[in-house]
Amino acid sequence: MEALKQKILKDATVIDGEILKVDNFLNHQIDVDFLNKIGKEFADRFSDVEVDKILTIESSGIAIASITAQYFNNVPVVFAKKTQSQNLDPEVFETKVFSFTKQKEYKVMVSKKYLKEGERVLIVDDFLARGRASLGLIDLVNQASAKVVGVGIVVEKFFQDGRELIEAKGIKLESLAMIESLKEGMIRFR
Amino acid sequence: MEALKQKILKDATVIDGEILKVDNFLNHQIDVDFLNKIGKEFADRFSDVEVDKILTIESSGIAIASITAQYFNNVPVVFAKKTQSQNLDPEVFETKVFSFTKQKEYKVMVSKKYLKEGERVLIVDDFLARGRASLGLIDLVNQASAKVVGVGIVVEKFFQDGRELIEAKGIKLESLAMIESLKEGMIRFR
Repeated sequence: MEALKQKILKDATVIDGEILKVDNFLNHQIDVDFLNKIGKEFADRFSDVEVDKILTIESSGIAIASITAQYFNNVPVVFAKKTQSQNLDPEVFETKVFSFTKQKEYKVMVSKKYLKEGERVLIVDDFLARGRASLGLIDLVNQASAKVVGVGIVVEKFFQDGRELIEAKGIKLESLAMIESLKEGMIRFR
Repeated sequence: MEALKQKILKDATVIDGEILKVDNFLNHQIDVDFLNKIGKEFADRFSDVEVDKILTIESSGIAIASITAQYFNNVPVVFAKKTQSQNLDPEVFETKVFSFTKQKEYKVMVSKKYLKEGERVLIVDDFLARGRASLGLIDLVNQASAKVVGVGIVVEKFFQDGRELIEAKGIKLESLAMIESLKEGMIRFR
């Protein structure tokens, strides 16, 4: 997605040669107008599949999923939660995800009410790197006997192994920007 | 907002006589079509103020703020973060918020890059009960020498003291549904 590449070159920064910081339009400050372009692009890329629900994970995926849903006939969005709270049902699908950024494993939960057998689920998220968050969401969908019809990612770090792990499951993966390298603070697209 | 009251009566549940659970359309599963109605209503209620930015707090406020921004000329959304991460700047405005639900105090942060002197900020959130989250966000805006032009809440628990605390600061507060009581599991609106 050319507009996204230009946006990244203009607004993103690279930290420590491996972190691409997009907090000024994607995961702290949110450019809603631009998210609409992203949502439209996901709708184009997944126009060949039927989508009953969009699944993401808190927090960075929520804005992307919500705006994107508008281009999928306003299907419901569900965001997986990382913390148990009084507002979460006791009956949940639960999985564990290792975060390389935070160097720890955390729980990810979705209420059993919001993933149902046979539902066709599109997973969206801001980043794909080592793929653990996406794999966790896929696991939740599988636990519900629902079907992952695709994974849509805004920014993929192509130099890590996330894509391989997802495609090995036979799941269609679309990334709107694929980063080949961040070496020496330079952003190179594939 | 009549449509919201009907939605709450139809879809919300009451737990322990004090928690209103709206996880099937607002803070776990998200009804994006309905959020558009909420965003439009906020735009009507705050049509008398100029808004440069919408501020909320992760996670439940993000979808509301993002959809609402579409009715405010796509102004940027910023969501305050509860955890430090590699993606957050070291330079932050920071405050502490006590959560009665979780019975603990937590930090709330916004990068200094995303709240600027003189900006007119609309705060939105899913719930207002004892008002601590909203007061924390107001504090962050004040630290930035920006101006809170209003607080927009989807569901207010009118029987708690949040409204009083915010109005004492001379800030305009609009809630789309005001709950008078949840006693005996019955939802009564004001």
